[in-house]
Amino acid sequence: MARWSPDARGRLERAALELFVEQGYAATTVPEITARAGLTTRTFFRHFADKREVFFAGDEISAFAGRLLADAPADLDPVALLEGGLRQTAAARFDGRREEVRRRRDVILAEPALRERDAQKRDDLVRVIRPALVARGVEELEAALLAELTVLVLHVALEAWLAEPVERPMGEVVAECFTRLRGVLTAGDVPQV
Amino acid sequence: MARWSPDARGRLERAALELFVEQGYAATTVPEITARAGLTTRTFFRHFADKREVFFAGDEISAFAGRLLADAPADLDPVALLEGGLRQTAAARFDGRREEVRRRRDVILAEPALRERDAQKRDDLVRVIRPALVARGVEELEAALLAELTVLVLHVALEAWLAEPVERPMGEVVAECFTRLRGVLTAGDVPQV
Repeated sequence: MARWSPDARGRLERAALELFVEQGYAATTVPEITARAGLTTRTFFRHFADKREVFFAGDEISAFAGRLLADAPADLDPVALLEGGLRQTAAARFDGRREEVRRRRDVILAEPALRERDAQKRDDLVRVIRPALVARGVEELEAALLAELTVLVLHVALEAWLAEPVERPMGEVVAECFTRLRGVLTAGDVPQV
Repeated sequence: MARWSPDARGRLERAALELFVEQGYAATTVPEITARAGLTTRTFFRHFADKREVFFAGDEISAFAGRLLADAPADLDPVALLEGGLRQTAAARFDGRREEVRRRRDVILAEPALRERDAQKRDDLVRVIRPALVARGVEELEAALLAELTVLVLHVALEAWLAEPVERPMGEVVAECFTRLRGVLTAGDVPQV
């Protein structure tokens, strides 16, 4: 086994996903993952803290969102900023990888420990976006709503995109979500309770 | 100990919340809860499957939402229906109980098993609202967005209501959330990516 392993991290991630799909997350061990990847357990633990992290460590949407929010022009409308950020995220991280994303989603749904970690990831994203909006001058309640709404659209758009018979750019689905939200929220009367 | 115990269920729920606040959820046993309530373990298990359910069994927002959606006039605008439903829920289940709701929320946040159950409750609510909207003729993507948005507003409005220095009707916070969402979504330009 070579001491220097090009793309060790990617090979471990792909091997783990294959094994999780084939035999389930719970039944898969770290030595099985490293054997499939042709690498050592030592190499595994240089990249990942544990079996669960091989599945989530590369998934740095929160960090990406943080950079995006920090770099955006101060006068950009917050919804335009968030919609633009989601469309960039969709293009960079999901387009062209639909089968892999779907397999990954199915593994997560089948395993409570992964569902919990996935929910935590969503909370992390809210916790990055919300204070960044407040720092841009967005009022507190509005910042809370917009941060949660961004994560909501990411989630709903991803599910809709995975369910469509033919793959198209996920950013189109994101744009459609915002268009529909705008339409439906402004269409109705304000209710009388 | 009387065989017939008026409001046994409520007494068990209050005793459980008291003990969870005093000594933590994990450290509290069912016999401690029944002793505090002055009831038998047998009575406990007539009302609840386990310690976790004493905390969630009375919390039937999903059932309430299902009835509300089934009974609403067919031509009512979906957002008006959902906003009205949230304001009814707020008035019926939260107003006047802020300290209890806050203590309960703090117990949930401190305990992973309760957080998971709480997240599942939110998913349950989405799963009730979404098909009910589709049955009312709302398009699939819009129904998914609105169902998630309803749960989002419930969550954000509850947090904001709990954080305010003086208690006011929670329905006012719900209405403010919808007003802000309408305002912010229609204020900006459609982004160019």
